[in-house]
Amino acid sequence: MQFENYIRDIQGFPKEGILFKDITPLLINPEARTNCLRILLNSLNNQKIDKVVGAESRGFFFGMLLAQKLNAGFVPVRKPKKLPYDTISASYELEYGSDSLEMHTDAIKKGDRVLIHDDVLATGGTAKAVCELVEKLEGEIVQCNFLMELTFLNGREKIKDYPVFAALTY
Amino acid sequence: MQFENYIRDIQGFPKEGILFKDITPLLINPEARTNCLRILLNSLNNQKIDKVVGAESRGFFFGMLLAQKLNAGFVPVRKPKKLPYDTISASYELEYGSDSLEMHTDAIKKGDRVLIHDDVLATGGTAKAVCELVEKLEGEIVQCNFLMELTFLNGREKIKDYPVFAALTY
Repeated sequence: MQFENYIRDIQGFPKEGILFKDITPLLINPEARTNCLRILLNSLNNQKIDKVVGAESRGFFFGMLLAQKLNAGFVPVRKPKKLPYDTISASYELEYGSDSLEMHTDAIKKGDRVLIHDDVLATGGTAKAVCELVEKLEGEIVQCNFLMELTFLNGREKIKDYPVFAALTY
Repeated sequence: MQFENYIRDIQGFPKEGILFKDITPLLINPEARTNCLRILLNSLNNQKIDKVVGAESRGFFFGMLLAQKLNAGFVPVRKPKKLPYDTISASYELEYGSDSLEMHTDAIKKGDRVLIHDDVLATGGTAKAVCELVEKLEGEIVQCNFLMELTFLNGREKIKDYPVFAALTY
């Protein structure tokens, strides 16, 4: 059960010239999904994790599964104005302009051992912003992990201060 | 471990006059989260489920945990233009105007036994639209379940053709 067979290439999404990696076939297949989850878990070498932070919204999928398996808290990082309680925010660059991400101020306690998860490591902008949020709340980033890394975009450079793991690289 | 103690009231979110039920404290507490998951699972009385359908984006959290525990596929229902492959859509009424939800055309096979999950049953508009999507693809809706039901909004009426379960009612 090679989970990479359950990632589907979509040409021209969300716009022309982009090859999108669709993970919905992976979500729909329990065996491939469990295999992928196991690979992510194994990469942690039994390190203790207090909180799993998942980025909106595709980071929620495996982020929740990781948190449940690790018996850790799950913390959603969301686009502006989606989180209802007090938040902190971090901005990141887009092709044109910038955007930002928010996290609840009570999501991470000082010294919490944190696993950051998202589906894809592309340019690293989102991942870096999530790291900044965790650092602001004085969490300790144990690993940033991803289902996939698009190595030609060199996103790993932006989060080089932290251990990075991708279950699959393109 | 009463999981309702981990749902936080936020006055005036997302706008004045609304009392928002914040589930992030529940997501962050593994024990309360697991208790809540167990209540949702127990309500199914061991009925076989092929697919769990979760509505964007708070339905993704427990939707994924339910799918994993049930060894079922997970199907995300999303806002327009978020899903990359061929989609079907269903619209629902908002206070002013309407919005729609999309599902991949290959997400449900005819005869699939489907569990629909979302965090809150409020007016039932979202839930009804999700049911329509599943019906279009000829899935069999086994249950619609929710962490919470806001009974004064009478959303249950809109999905009265299906078994409905809410772990908590207000």
